[in-house]
Amino acid sequence: MKTLTTHFIDVRERTVLLCQNLQIEDYTPQSALFSSPPKWHIAHVTWFFEEMILKKHVPNYEVFDSNFGFLFNSYYNSIGERIERHNRGLLTRPKIENVYEFRAFVDKAMVDLLESNPNEDVDKLTILGINHEQQHQELLLTDIKYTLSKNPLYPKLFESNFVTHHNKQQGWLTVDEGIYQIGHQNESFSFDNELGAHRVFLEPFQISKNLVTCGEFIEFINDNGYTKPEYWLDEGWFWINDNNITQPLYWKHQDGTWFQYTLSGLEPIDEKSILTHISFYEASAFALWKGLRLPTEFEWEVASKDLEWGTHWEWTNSAYLPYPRFKTAEGAVGEYNGKFMINQMVLRGASHATAPGHSRHTYRNFFHPQYQWQFSGIRLAK
Amino acid sequence: MKTLTTHFIDVRERTVLLCQNLQIEDYTPQSALFSSPPKWHIAHVTWFFEEMILKKHVPNYEVFDSNFGFLFNSYYNSIGERIERHNRGLLTRPKIENVYEFRAFVDKAMVDLLESNPNEDVDKLTILGINHEQQHQELLLTDIKYTLSKNPLYPKLFESNFVTHHNKQQGWLTVDEGIYQIGHQNESFSFDNELGAHRVFLEPFQISKNLVTCGEFIEFINDNGYTKPEYWLDEGWFWINDNNITQPLYWKHQDGTWFQYTLSGLEPIDEKSILTHISFYEASAFALWKGLRLPTEFEWEVASKDLEWGTHWEWTNSAYLPYPRFKTAEGAVGEYNGKFMINQMVLRGASHATAPGHSRHTYRNFFHPQYQWQFSGIRLAK
Amino acid sequence: MKTLTTHFIDVRERTVLLCQNLQIEDYTPQSALFSSPPKWHIAHVTWFFEEMILKKHVPNYEVFDSNFGFLFNSYYNSIGERIERHNRGLLTRPKIENVYEFRAFVDKAMVDLLESNPNEDVDKLTILGINHEQQHQELLLTDIKYTLSKNPLYPKLFESNFVTHHNKQQGWLTVDEGIYQIGHQNESFSFDNELGAHRVFLEPFQISKNLVTCGEFIEFINDNGYTKPEYWLDEGWFWINDNNITQPLYWKHQDGTWFQYTLSGLEPIDEKSILTHISFYEASAFALWKGLRLPTEFEWEVASKDLEWGTHWEWTNSAYLPYPRFKTAEGAVGEYNGKFMINQMVLRGASHATAPGHSRHTYRNFFHPQYQWQFSGIRLAK
Amino acid sequence: MKTLTTHFIDVRERTVLLCQNLQIEDYTPQSALFSSPPKWHIAHVTWFFEEMILKKHVPNYEVFDSNFGFLFNSYYNSIGERIERHNRGLLTRPKIENVYEFRAFVDKAMVDLLESNPNEDVDKLTILGINHEQQHQELLLTDIKYTLSKNPLYPKLFESNFVTHHNKQQGWLTVDEGIYQIGHQNESFSFDNELGAHRVFLEPFQISKNLVTCGEFIEFINDNGYTKPEYWLDEGWFWINDNNITQPLYWKHQDGTWFQYTLSGLEPIDEKSILTHISFYEASAFALWKGLRLPTEFEWEVASKDLEWGTHWEWTNSAYLPYPRFKTAEGAVGEYNGKFMINQMVLRGASHATAPGHSRHTYRNFFHPQYQWQFSGIRLAK
Repeated sequence: MKTLTTHFIDVRERTVLLCQNLQIEDYTPQSALFSSPPKWHIAHVTWFFEEMILKKHVPNYEVFDSNFGFLFNSYYNSIGERIERHNRGLLTRPKIENVYEFRAFVDKAMVDLLESNPNEDVDKLTILGINHEQQHQELLLTDIKYTLSKNPLYPKLFESNFVTHHNKQQGWLTVDEGIYQIGHQNESFSFDNELGAHRVFLEPFQISKNLVTCGEFIEFINDNGYTKPEYWLDEGWFWINDNNITQPLYWKHQDGTWFQYTLSGLEPIDEKSILTHISFYEASAFALWKGLRLPTEFEWEVASKDLEWGTHWEWTNSAYLPYPRFKTAEGAVGEYNGKFMINQMVLRGASHATAPGHSRHTYRNFFHPQYQWQFSGIRLAK
Repeated sequence: MKTLTTHFIDVRERTVLLCQNLQIEDYTPQSALFSSPPKWHIAHVTWFFEEMILKKHVPNYEVFDSNFGFLFNSYYNSIGERIERHNRGLLTRPKIENVYEFRAFVDKAMVDLLESNPNEDVDKLTILGINHEQQHQELLLTDIKYTLSKNPLYPKLFESNFVTHHNKQQGWLTVDEGIYQIGHQNESFSFDNELGAHRVFLEPFQISKNLVTCGEFIEFINDNGYTKPEYWLDEGWFWINDNNITQPLYWKHQDGTWFQYTLSGLEPIDEKSILTHISFYEASAFALWKGLRLPTEFEWEVASKDLEWGTHWEWTNSAYLPYPRFKTAEGAVGEYNGKFMINQMVLRGASHATAPGHSRHTYRNFFHPQYQWQFSGIRLAK
Repeated sequence: MKTLTTHFIDVRERTVLLCQNLQIEDYTPQSALFSSPPKWHIAHVTWFFEEMILKKHVPNYEVFDSNFGFLFNSYYNSIGERIERHNRGLLTRPKIENVYEFRAFVDKAMVDLLESNPNEDVDKLTILGINHEQQHQELLLTDIKYTLSKNPLYPKLFESNFVTHHNKQQGWLTVDEGIYQIGHQNESFSFDNELGAHRVFLEPFQISKNLVTCGEFIEFINDNGYTKPEYWLDEGWFWINDNNITQPLYWKHQDGTWFQYTLSGLEPIDEKSILTHISFYEASAFALWKGLRLPTEFEWEVASKDLEWGTHWEWTNSAYLPYPRFKTAEGAVGEYNGKFMINQMVLRGASHATAPGHSRHTYRNFFHPQYQWQFSGIRLAK
Repeated sequence: MKTLTTHFIDVRERTVLLCQNLQIEDYTPQSALFSSPPKWHIAHVTWFFEEMILKKHVPNYEVFDSNFGFLFNSYYNSIGERIERHNRGLLTRPKIENVYEFRAFVDKAMVDLLESNPNEDVDKLTILGINHEQQHQELLLTDIKYTLSKNPLYPKLFESNFVTHHNKQQGWLTVDEGIYQIGHQNESFSFDNELGAHRVFLEPFQISKNLVTCGEFIEFINDNGYTKPEYWLDEGWFWINDNNITQPLYWKHQDGTWFQYTLSGLEPIDEKSILTHISFYEASAFALWKGLRLPTEFEWEVASKDLEWGTHWEWTNSAYLPYPRFKTAEGAVGEYNGKFMINQMVLRGASHATAPGHSRHTYRNFFHPQYQWQFSGIRLAK
């Protein structure tokens, strides 16, 4: 079995690997309030180890650069001032090579600490930091995709396009009514929002074995789904009209053919492939148009052991709320999840961009209903 | 037992009674996007009867004024164009006396229809229209209060202030774990969002027998609750800072004393009275400061039979989402509830401004988490 | 010759006359940040007499209502707090009948003062107050027109439409180069922005004897003038695109015919009538499309003695800036004009809605370049 | 005398020299709607030569990259689509080294063209392109300064700080009344906005021989100048309050000392040095506080031959408007100046960041009154 040190090193190296095709120019700009620059991601996950572990557990630890705490803190209000979120893209300095030096510096200190017989608290925080970095690995990909998509040159970052996936199963899975156990049993790592294992009663339901394909969504478009208010949540209707949304993010219709921007450039859409980059509003409208609905996160969790999942995050019709007995941790770590439990919808599963081994069937991802830039898809229920 | 006709007349007359102290000048202006002018409310509830019932069920019915359909439609996208919501306050014409003529005209036609042996569909729609009007009666009060509150003269509309209420019970109610029945059994009228009676498993919990008082909330203020991020949902923290929120709506601190604007003018706050005009964000922060939490709507529904309730709407920590088997009705009536099931939190109970007999223990009210202008309060759980 | 008292009474009565067809409902709402409700106008001009004259020159004067100073101050920063401009439409109280009582109260006190042998300072301030009220008379009309125009019922306020005017002269007037005297000689009343009579050298120019007609502007529209960037100032181009401006304010195209909303309802456009409700941006684009230009305010002032003018305010290509030796008066009266001398363009002449005798050939009116709601028109030069 | 080719090469090399200390990371991000990234500046000025000259005058010219026309067009509406202004900072590709290759490619083609006996049209457009590039050289400096100023690290780009300058003259210059010649006589290059030489009559005036110093402005601050509405234009008053402006851009007050961010880092302010980074609103308020005024651009032009100028752009109280007989050129070049003649104020002179030889006493610079990020200063008149 992998030691924690090895695991730490592997995850840290994977971040660097994901950045291998980035040009220096790609690291700094910020393309939206909801996205962050690559430089910021790779510095921020490093800052987490320095701030939460090294400063507390290494005697006389000297930080790499005292300014970095201010620059690369994300949202931890309890740890002093931080740069305003919309200004993350203006940090042309430190240079990216200094950020990589910062990574190497922290990596060395962390390995030293992990190898020197640390305590359980260090282990737990290190595992949290590893999971935190894995989350940012996926964000790094979705964020840089969003930035590159604004470039009329359709830059190509990878050979493989990260998008084309096909369903292997079809049909409906039936689940009986009953009391089910929900949430993480604490037998291994989880985020705090999964804890509070508890019982939920489910009415009987059916859930689709496959995700919605691009071809099915084109039917919705061709049936003027984007112009019929009866399918849309009221705020979704305003959202598509205020923002002139008439198709999934990254789609373009040219000369009668649908294309989509991918991390390997602009490509024609394979109608049999699984639909992605869809907002909750679009998922909800599509389901209503079909005469069906989205599953709840509890239905999903119960059914998931019999489903194929992991290529796309799946919107559920559950709001992101605390489980019974949810407790916010003390201090900065406590800001991890609880304070975002409003106005967001839960996504379950994982995507092809999720770090291997990072997710699990109790994992709760969450985004605001208008966001499309994640690798999100639709699974229907009835 | 009251006939439907009598019930119809009673509710219609109550609307007029609520407006008895309004000056002509009060009827037209709109003070916020979320509030509507009295003239609009009393015309809109009348339009509902004409549009949904009379036009369909009275042969050769001639509308009072063909423009009113356009002017007083609210959000029914399926019934053609409507005036933009933010322009409702610019309708200086029709004059208020014409709107009252419109009411009388529709009342007469409705009574004629109800007395002439109508069908079940008319009965059902009439009952829906009555409940719809009762909802607008409460909004009429909260909306005109918001408008008058912007006036430095602190206008007085009623002798009684609508605000001062006291808890009669104290302490905690304990509820055992178990499967509970939730939702309306369809034995009498309910809104569609209560239907889909279903079972919910509840972990054991305790719920307070009393609502939070003004005095308790002053302690929160005095402990600098509004300036400590650790108590606030992240979006709540931005909301209070962007809008300089430092106290409940309508509160003013003058010479060391807390006052609040009420419908009977500016009055000193009775610290033992029940707190109201509180947003979900404030309710949530207060609960966290107390080391407690808000109940879910399911906990509330189960416990409510043993609780005193009805003076203030009670924020729950449940998002407004569909029950299992929820179905949107066909046509315009189907726009009533379902399309608002996003980004809103459920309130349960009723307030002193709710029409008598209108609410019930399965009733689901809902507002966005930042809204304070309803008669909302806080009940804690653990 | 009229005494000052008579003149005062005449102007005060004219305000009331202009309001004769207003319904109580019309007095309160505010339709835009740039417009004010009738109630506010008629109270504010009255407040001016009380604040600037009666409180200073009548021993032991007691104000009608101490709240009115706060409610009806407009922009005089030096006289304490005032209600925020965008909330003027929420003052449902005081009722309009109380505002008329306020007018009567102040009228009586003013007449008493004027008849009791006052000093020169009172005379000067009274004349200023009269001119101030005349300015608000015109704004009252343009503001209520803007409010009523938002009403799909096209309310009718007067029998005469205030819009249809025809040119009596045609052709070009030639003016020689030379040094000309500009500004008011102080022989009678003027606003401070006209003072500082000074010399200006003008290059030779020609100015049109007539204003642009609706028919000429329809040619511009038909030539796709609103979609060709080459005619537009850059900020004008953004303005028409951001606001979907494709025609003058109040114009509507129905079944191939152009109509315009007027104070006597929606009426077909007489192509030979003079164009009005035009922004500076539109005036500028039209002139460039014609291969011509707008005159400067100095050219206009010099030429005006030989021109027919007075039915429409005429946009000039002069920015509103101080004349040489311009001095701001001491105290609140000094806030009258000087502080608005930025980002506005000068209009010269008068309109059919200007109080008789109010304007003169040195008069400088001014508005931001995007505003259309005044009775503004176009005169060309070359 | 320098040949045009030599002059072209010198100016092109100066741009590269100005960028010598930029890191690759600095080239891409955009810090405000009004500022552009260095990469964009250096590509855009190059595009100008390709688009306006090479494509028209070199037979069979093949563009360096057909996408660059779209990416680096600035505001020329007549030349097809362009990337939205606020997205300039998202162009991580092309890489900066490709942009330098683009420069080299165009430089070579231009030198070939210039050396091959071109026509007068090429010469004129080349001179225009050179002047255009010089303008962008100054913007490049002010824009990168604005971006770097957002970085809490206070990055240092140059050894010299670009800020500290002192007045060499003191006292007042008196100018007699009279008719003066204004504008460019067309004897050498000028922009079209300087043309239309014409006569202006000036009343007698006095103008200061020195610019306002930092120390004088600190007196204004200490006298609470930023909190007294009587000194401010109304829109300036809203601007400082809405944006919490309490000092010039880049100033910081720390431990009782004033510092300012400069291109050589954060430095203490020399009170005797000339004030800069001041908006027109601040300049206007300061002048009123002093009981003085800003000169008009005509007064400045007449007086300038007897004044020391060139270290800071000087705000005048003249709006940016066309001179008599101003004509917009045909085609894209015609979009250079005329369409910006609204809502901007004229600055005269030059700054220490202006390319040597670029400005002259008829030169008209212009910015909106709220902008502070140019090297702007204050000269008073009376």
